[in-house]
Amino acid sequence: MQHLIRTSDFSKDEILGLFDDAREFLKFEPNEILKGKIIVTLFFENSTRTRSSFEIAAKRLGAEVVSLDVSTSSASKGETIFDTVANINAMKPDAIIIRHSECGLPESLAGYVDCPIINAGDGKHAHPTQALLDLFTIYEHFNGNTEGKKVAIVGDVRTSRVAGSNRRLLPRFGMDVSFISPECFRYDGDEFKTYIHISDVIDDLDVIMSLRTQLERHSEIYFESLNEYAKDYCITNEVVGDRDILLLHPGPVNRNVDISDDMLKDPRCKVLTQVTNGVAIRAAVLKKLILA
Amino acid sequence: MQHLIRTSDFSKDEILGLFDDAREFLKFEPNEILKGKIIVTLFFENSTRTRSSFEIAAKRLGAEVVSLDVSTSSASKGETIFDTVANINAMKPDAIIIRHSECGLPESLAGYVDCPIINAGDGKHAHPTQALLDLFTIYEHFNGNTEGKKVAIVGDVRTSRVAGSNRRLLPRFGMDVSFISPECFRYDGDEFKTYIHISDVIDDLDVIMSLRTQLERHSEIYFESLNEYAKDYCITNEVVGDRDILLLHPGPVNRNVDISDDMLKDPRCKVLTQVTNGVAIRAAVLKKLILA
Amino acid sequence: MQHLIRTSDFSKDEILGLFDDAREFLKFEPNEILKGKIIVTLFFENSTRTRSSFEIAAKRLGAEVVSLDVSTSSASKGETIFDTVANINAMKPDAIIIRHSECGLPESLAGYVDCPIINAGDGKHAHPTQALLDLFTIYEHFNGNTEGKKVAIVGDVRTSRVAGSNRRLLPRFGMDVSFISPECFRYDGDEFKTYIHISDVIDDLDVIMSLRTQLERHSEIYFESLNEYAKDYCITNEVVGDRDILLLHPGPVNRNVDISDDMLKDPRCKVLTQVTNGVAIRAAVLKKLILA
Repeated sequence: MQHLIRTSDFSKDEILGLFDDAREFLKFEPNEILKGKIIVTLFFENSTRTRSSFEIAAKRLGAEVVSLDVSTSSASKGETIFDTVANINAMKPDAIIIRHSECGLPESLAGYVDCPIINAGDGKHAHPTQALLDLFTIYEHFNGNTEGKKVAIVGDVRTSRVAGSNRRLLPRFGMDVSFISPECFRYDGDEFKTYIHISDVIDDLDVIMSLRTQLERHSEIYFESLNEYAKDYCITNEVVGDRDILLLHPGPVNRNVDISDDMLKDPRCKVLTQVTNGVAIRAAVLKKLILA
Repeated sequence: MQHLIRTSDFSKDEILGLFDDAREFLKFEPNEILKGKIIVTLFFENSTRTRSSFEIAAKRLGAEVVSLDVSTSSASKGETIFDTVANINAMKPDAIIIRHSECGLPESLAGYVDCPIINAGDGKHAHPTQALLDLFTIYEHFNGNTEGKKVAIVGDVRTSRVAGSNRRLLPRFGMDVSFISPECFRYDGDEFKTYIHISDVIDDLDVIMSLRTQLERHSEIYFESLNEYAKDYCITNEVVGDRDILLLHPGPVNRNVDISDDMLKDPRCKVLTQVTNGVAIRAAVLKKLILA
Repeated sequence: MQHLIRTSDFSKDEILGLFDDAREFLKFEPNEILKGKIIVTLFFENSTRTRSSFEIAAKRLGAEVVSLDVSTSSASKGETIFDTVANINAMKPDAIIIRHSECGLPESLAGYVDCPIINAGDGKHAHPTQALLDLFTIYEHFNGNTEGKKVAIVGDVRTSRVAGSNRRLLPRFGMDVSFISPECFRYDGDEFKTYIHISDVIDDLDVIMSLRTQLERHSEIYFESLNEYAKDYCITNEVVGDRDILLLHPGPVNRNVDISDDMLKDPRCKVLTQVTNGVAIRAAVLKKLILA
C-alpha cells in the first residue's frame, strides 16, 4: 500500500503514469473505475476548492465520498486526531484524504490506517496534488519538453506549501526553479536562486508561478496592505509584456494583487486550466493508490 | 445549451414535456438517466428544503451531487462570486444549481460557465422550479383544463419571488391571476387585479396560493405580530367554507398564520403533494437541461 | 413496514438474521443491494461518528444518502419537527435515520411517514443499533454461546442510552447483566444487580462494557474532575489482570478515564472491532427495513 504524503512518494515513471491517466480523464467519459469504493475526506482546515476537486474527481470514477465535518466531530469531545483516524479506519474506507494545519501530521497518521492516506495540504510543508497538477499543466504546455525550462515562483515562498512541493518536484523534471519575493518572504535556504525584483529575471523565464499572498499568516506586519505588496509583485501585462511566458497560480487569486485583471484574461494565463487539470490529476492519484 | 433562470426560458411545449417526464418520475422507479453526471449546488441563502429537493431529484436519476458550503468557501477569502463560479465551472460539472439573495445574479453568471445554470431562487425576482411545480400541481388537479381558472395569490405578493414567477407563468396556461394582500404588501403594477379582503373574491376562486409571510424581510414594521396579520389573511376552514378550492403554499407554512391547522389537514390542501411534485419537476428539469 | 425504535422491535430470529447479513457485509465485497434507494439522515444532535457509520453502511450497499443539516433547516424558520419530517417524507425517501435529544421523539414521528424510521439515539432512552453491534461483537467473540455470560456495564448507567438499550437486549440472549457505578450514577430500578466497586465482581465477569463518562450531562457536580472518577472506574491493566475478559466501549473513549492507554492496546479490548461491526450491523438493518 502506498500513501501520498509528498511528491517524492512517486517515482518519475509513476508520475508519468499518472499523467497518462489524467489525460484520459480529461475526456470526461463516464467510467466506474472506483465503483463501490468509499473515500473519506477529513479537512481540519477549510478548503472548499480542494475538497470539491477531490470530491468531483472521486465521483467521476464512480466512488462514494464521505465528508467528515471535523469541526463538529469527536475532536470537540476531546478525542485525539489519532483516535479519530483509527476509528474512521475501522469503518474500512478505501482512502482517507486529509488536510491539517500541522506539518507532518498526515504522515504521522500512516501507522494508524489500513488504507492510503492522501495529503491535501499540511501546514507549510507540502501540497503534493497541487504540485502534481502544476507540473502536469507545465508538462502538457511544453509537450513534455520540460528539461531546462526556467520557472520562477513569485510571492510568499517562505510559508507556501505550494512552493514547498513545487521546488522539490519541478527540478526532478529538469526545470530550473528560482524564487522572487520581497526580503520578508525570502526562502530560507541556498539551493535556489532568489531574486527581489521580477525585472531582474523576467527575460529568462518560461514559467511564472504566482502564489496567493496571505498577509494575515504572518505575525509581523510586513506590508501595510496587499496593494502595497502588489506594486512590486503583481503580475501585470506591463510586467510580462509580449514575452512567451506561461502564467500559473494555485488559486484563489487575489485579483490585482497576485495577478492583474488583464493578465487573468490573457491566454498565457492558465489558472482555470490548472483547476480542470486538478480534477484529472486527483482522479489519477485516487485510482493509483486505491487500485494498487 | 439552455439555462433555467426564469420560467419564460421554456416554451409551453417544453413545459408540457417536463410534465410528461415528471409524471413518469412520480412512479419512483429506479433509473440511471443521469448516471455519471455531476451536479453542483451553490446556495448563498440557506434552504435545506429546496436544496434537498434538488439533491433527491438528482440522485433519483443516478447523478452525483456536490454541495458547496459557500459560507466556508473562497467567498470568505475575498474571491468574487464570478471567480468562484468560473473555478467551479473549470471542474467541469454537468449543471450548477444556484440560490442567491441578489436578483439577476444567476443570469449574470451564465456567461462564465459551460454548463446549464438552474436558478433556485434569486432575491425577490424568480423561483422558476417552484412556479413549475405549482403549475404542475394545478395542471394535474384539473386534468390539464387550466384555461380560465381563477387563482388568487395571498399574502406578501410584493417581495415574494414565488409570486413573481407564478404571476408570469400561470397566465400562459390560461389562468386568471389576482392578488390578495394588505396595502403594505400590495403588488406594484396594474396588470393584475388586486384585492384587500379575501371575502371580496373567494366565491369566484378555483385556487388559493398562500405565501409564507416573513415580516422580518421588511424594513418597516407593518404588523405588530404574525398573529395580527393572520386575523385577516390566514386561510381557515371558516374562510374557505365548503367551496371547491385547491389550496397551495410553497412552504414552510407558518401554521395558523398562513394556513390554519384544520385546513392543513383538509384534503383540498395540497401542500405535501407540492413537495412530492417538486422532486419530480426538478428531476425533469435536470434531465432536460443536462441531456439537451 | 417496520421501524427500528428500540431493539425489541426485532425478534431474536430477526436479530440472528441481521447477524448473518452483517457477517457477509464484513467481507466488504461490492454489492448494489440498495441501489437507487435514498436514505435521509436527520441528526438534531451532532454525531459525526454514528452518522458516518450509517452513511458508509448505506453507500456500501449502493444507496444514496442525503444528510439534512438540521441546524440551518426549516427548524430555524419556526417549523415543528413534525412538519419538517412530513415534508421530508413527501420527497419519498426510502428510510429516515434520526437522532434527537428527546426520548421517544423518533417513535412519535412514525405516524407521519411512509418509510422506515431508524432511531440513531434519542435522549437517555435508546440507541438500538449500538446495542445490536455490541451484542454482535459479543456473539461473535463467543461463537454464539452467550447463554449465561456475565456482562457488567460500568460507569454512568443512569443516563446512558447505550446502557438503556443493552440492558434490555443482552438478557434476551441469555446474558446476565449487572451495573457497576458510583452511587450518583446508579441505575434507578431493581431488576439488575448493581455494584459500587469493580473488584467486588470482576472475578465472575466475561464482558466489561465501559461507558463514556460525560460529567457535563449532569446538573449536579458529582466529581471534581474526570480524573477523580477514573481512580475508581477506569478499566486498567491492573484492574483486569490476566482474566479472560472481553472489553467493550461505545466510543469515543475518554483515554485514561474510561479505559487506560494500556488496555486500549490490549487484544482483549475490541473497541475498534465494534466500530467495524457497527458499519456491518447498520448495513444489515438498512437492508432489512428498506427491502422488507
